[in-house]
Amino acid sequence: MANLAFLGLGIMGYPMARNLRQAGHDVAVWSNTAAKAQKLASEFGAVACGTPAQAAANAEAIFLCVGDSAMSEEVLTGKNGVVETAKPGAVVADASTVSPEMSRRVGRALAEKGVHFLDAPCTGSKPGAEGGTLTFMIGGDQKVYEKVKPFLEIMGKQFYYCGGPGMGLHAKLSQNLILANMLQAFNEGMVLCTKAGVDPAQMIEILNNSAAKSGFITFKAPYILNRDFSTNFSTKWMHKDVTLAIDSAEALNIPLPVTSITQQMFRAAIAKGFGEEDLCATIKVMEDWSGIEVKKSTT
Amino acid sequence: MANLAFLGLGIMGYPMARNLRQAGHDVAVWSNTAAKAQKLASEFGAVACGTPAQAAANAEAIFLCVGDSAMSEEVLTGKNGVVETAKPGAVVADASTVSPEMSRRVGRALAEKGVHFLDAPCTGSKPGAEGGTLTFMIGGDQKVYEKVKPFLEIMGKQFYYCGGPGMGLHAKLSQNLILANMLQAFNEGMVLCTKAGVDPAQMIEILNNSAAKSGFITFKAPYILNRDFSTNFSTKWMHKDVTLAIDSAEALNIPLPVTSITQQMFRAAIAKGFGEEDLCATIKVMEDWSGIEVKKSTT
Amino acid sequence: MANLAFLGLGIMGYPMARNLRQAGHDVAVWSNTAAKAQKLASEFGAVACGTPAQAAANAEAIFLCVGDSAMSEEVLTGKNGVVETAKPGAVVADASTVSPEMSRRVGRALAEKGVHFLDAPCTGSKPGAEGGTLTFMIGGDQKVYEKVKPFLEIMGKQFYYCGGPGMGLHAKLSQNLILANMLQAFNEGMVLCTKAGVDPAQMIEILNNSAAKSGFITFKAPYILNRDFSTNFSTKWMHKDVTLAIDSAEALNIPLPVTSITQQMFRAAIAKGFGEEDLCATIKVMEDWSGIEVKKSTT
Amino acid sequence: MANLAFLGLGIMGYPMARNLRQAGHDVAVWSNTAAKAQKLASEFGAVACGTPAQAAANAEAIFLCVGDSAMSEEVLTGKNGVVETAKPGAVVADASTVSPEMSRRVGRALAEKGVHFLDAPCTGSKPGAEGGTLTFMIGGDQKVYEKVKPFLEIMGKQFYYCGGPGMGLHAKLSQNLILANMLQAFNEGMVLCTKAGVDPAQMIEILNNSAAKSGFITFKAPYILNRDFSTNFSTKWMHKDVTLAIDSAEALNIPLPVTSITQQMFRAAIAKGFGEEDLCATIKVMEDWSGIEVKKSTT
Repeated sequence: MANLAFLGLGIMGYPMARNLRQAGHDVAVWSNTAAKAQKLASEFGAVACGTPAQAAANAEAIFLCVGDSAMSEEVLTGKNGVVETAKPGAVVADASTVSPEMSRRVGRALAEKGVHFLDAPCTGSKPGAEGGTLTFMIGGDQKVYEKVKPFLEIMGKQFYYCGGPGMGLHAKLSQNLILANMLQAFNEGMVLCTKAGVDPAQMIEILNNSAAKSGFITFKAPYILNRDFSTNFSTKWMHKDVTLAIDSAEALNIPLPVTSITQQMFRAAIAKGFGEEDLCATIKVMEDWSGIEVKKSTT
Repeated sequence: MANLAFLGLGIMGYPMARNLRQAGHDVAVWSNTAAKAQKLASEFGAVACGTPAQAAANAEAIFLCVGDSAMSEEVLTGKNGVVETAKPGAVVADASTVSPEMSRRVGRALAEKGVHFLDAPCTGSKPGAEGGTLTFMIGGDQKVYEKVKPFLEIMGKQFYYCGGPGMGLHAKLSQNLILANMLQAFNEGMVLCTKAGVDPAQMIEILNNSAAKSGFITFKAPYILNRDFSTNFSTKWMHKDVTLAIDSAEALNIPLPVTSITQQMFRAAIAKGFGEEDLCATIKVMEDWSGIEVKKSTT
Repeated sequence: MANLAFLGLGIMGYPMARNLRQAGHDVAVWSNTAAKAQKLASEFGAVACGTPAQAAANAEAIFLCVGDSAMSEEVLTGKNGVVETAKPGAVVADASTVSPEMSRRVGRALAEKGVHFLDAPCTGSKPGAEGGTLTFMIGGDQKVYEKVKPFLEIMGKQFYYCGGPGMGLHAKLSQNLILANMLQAFNEGMVLCTKAGVDPAQMIEILNNSAAKSGFITFKAPYILNRDFSTNFSTKWMHKDVTLAIDSAEALNIPLPVTSITQQMFRAAIAKGFGEEDLCATIKVMEDWSGIEVKKSTT
Repeated sequence: MANLAFLGLGIMGYPMARNLRQAGHDVAVWSNTAAKAQKLASEFGAVACGTPAQAAANAEAIFLCVGDSAMSEEVLTGKNGVVETAKPGAVVADASTVSPEMSRRVGRALAEKGVHFLDAPCTGSKPGAEGGTLTFMIGGDQKVYEKVKPFLEIMGKQFYYCGGPGMGLHAKLSQNLILANMLQAFNEGMVLCTKAGVDPAQMIEILNNSAAKSGFITFKAPYILNRDFSTNFSTKWMHKDVTLAIDSAEALNIPLPVTSITQQMFRAAIAKGFGEEDLCATIKVMEDWSGIEVKKSTT
């Protein structure tokens, strides 16, 4: 059994770390919220550590899943960060969705200590993390990837090796960019037909039986019809991902006109107070402008 | 067997009319291009007519599928149009994708002569029209719809009764609005990841195995990778449909920010000379701005 | 003195017609609202007519200023329209802001009767109409323009001959497109700095002393600071003009990305109920999103 | 005479520093390009220093004008930066156009050493810097501002004290946001009327005599008509400023829909290779889409 580390024990990270531990590996864990590490230690036998550096000290593979680029950089290369203790030859795989530019910078800093680095963002949300059925998109050296693949296979089911450093992130951000636009397209189409007089539930049935069908909308639509905006993936986090995609596009000199307007509509949703709600709450901005609600008919 | 009429024998209309005839009905046909009506007469036994009015004179049900709102209005209520000869009690079902406002106006004009009217736009493209597997969205009086349903069932396989006059069109336009935005979202996501260094073929594989999967993009993506922009559904026609959706939104006082930018990007594609190509040629506007092509790797 | 006609006696048309009459000409007038024609007759000695055709019958020059393209087309070429009675050699000059395409169509219809046609949209609002200080942009035959110029000089002070049919309208629409975008730019800049903490009155002072100074904003800004949205030029009419500009751009195959978003923001203002207020009320859409008001400090 | 420092000797900084020196003050200067500091030393008697820290060591007031937020932060709080040597009670006034958030962070870092900080961005371009006629917008403590005002009056002519830390920058960014949108509005209006057939030189004359007149466009338009895109203020720098404004709006939760599309159009101009040209080169993106050029008629 291997010595592993897992840093960041949020909605995603906690079950991912637990799955590694339950597969029999020794897992040193650290979280911003110490109680989470303690819980994982007391209930599943992980080793709770006080800093990322402590958790990383003996690990052959170090995984992390944190909220944004600044946290990832801090955990890996900041004070008491992984870079201070990680062994030469160890592999760090970052499952966070962060800036590809930042990720490459961190990778170079770790490389100076002989530590390998992969970007390995994932999709699948909470259920995927809990069930070990995540999809990973990986960037970095392919041989390094092969070394940690057995561990990733405990946490996920589908794997795409996308190329050199940052390529996993670029794939992930492009996917989320498409999802965000898809949702705003749905929002605009639904307020239009609903205000015109089409029953929104029927419109969704039509979409679900058409070329416009998409897994994302098929999943989200019933929540909207039922006015259930409890958070699965928040407006705020999708806004963050779209902003990362646009920042990457800026670095690559690519204008993204439709995506930039989708970003502003997500920002409007945040401004109107829906940032912590599920991203399908973005439809409320369109509804406010239209004077109707997209909901199940009560008749 | 019934006396029917079919007006407009384009890529969609010709096989739709042929299917009605091959089901055993007497079909009087008219086309802007007389040769098409003659062909349907000589090869399949339809009756070629010189004007819409002549074709409609004896029909109990009159179908049409023409290119735009102006043509539909002309064929139905213009000089030598259906309104001049259609029998009281006859049903006109318009399968064209046109303005809901125009459609309701035409319906009122026909109603003054005791002629019933349905909007019945369809999806399924050429293969659907040829195979009799179209999807119809119907607006108008439900009893009137029941009367012509047996004929529609010769041409299509799926039917959605959407409500009063114009509701079929509103459903269709909202669907196409979503498809157009979905395509532009795909275009923006693909140039971004491709320029960043991700292999576009792999990105499409990732999308096809994710929540971002949609029938439309799964179908279109290989054509883009193969740089095959031969027309299935042209940029020009999709631009027309998006414009109809935006015009409807204007009538209903609904702003559609993302859709309006998608419309402008389709317009840019037309301006750059891709109007007659398949709508997936819209990606070339993004490629021109990005300096890359989204195509199969040649290695 | 000449026999003239003036059709459409709204906020602009009434004082324009009155000025022609007060210059000593015989003016036959018609208005949708008969009382306005009567008033001009009883108070100033114009001749009130029951239809545009009657007003036009003896005129050597016929002017009109109506609200939109449909009205203009109806007054000129509809039933009881100018085309029915205007004398060969007469000149029609349309001061309405309407579709250049419609305007050219009307011009061709009049030409068939030997009647000359100019598009002659104007700027200057109510004060310009009352004081005879309007600016006219003229399209059509230059010799025809020279014939009616003496009459235009009674109503206006500045004249731009812009070229063939429709060119006056194209110039006018491009100017209003720029004004609308300028206002939305101002709206966005003002909510940004105000929410950041800059005093909006000071920001406007800064703008008024910078390269960003424009007559339009300098004039409008104090109304916004004072929350006075009483109508000078309504949101609804500017939305109409921007839509005409975008329709023209569609006919010419030109995408207008920023203008199309400005249009949607004006549409949002209409959707929120500000359509009849002055166009500077559009800032309220941005304020609703920002949670602040751009107003004079009360301290 | 006072001991001053000036850091950053680019197009703006060089003449600003020279003006301080020519007013009789002792000026220690530093530039990324050592030759510029040497030139100012040999020709005008400034003291060339090897690092910002050296230049700042004896100064009672320290001015800087550098290219972006990262440079400003580096010069002030990085290695060999001002913070290392500046005397308690000294005043740093940053004339660079940078992020208000960064600026406040730097101000706090300097405050810990007892050093005062003002944001003091300016407008007026090269001629304003050379002639000492710049406009300054100042944020920070008003008493601190009063202390350095005599020095600012050597470099500028107009002064706006805008409030606490960052307020000068917020005012400046809002102004540039408006200018950028104004230019894109002009670009869209000009390609529209030019393609329609209006002479662009006449259109500009019309604008210059209308409410749409603005100092910025009146100044820039002749360069466009003459196809002279030599750089006064580059597309790249305006794109940077618009991006700073949008980043500020993000921090304040304000969506800026039109500005975000203007940003993307500037980005398209950079992508097409016009980043180093004057910002009026942005019109070439619209021209490419329209198939025409906005230029002086050659007939």
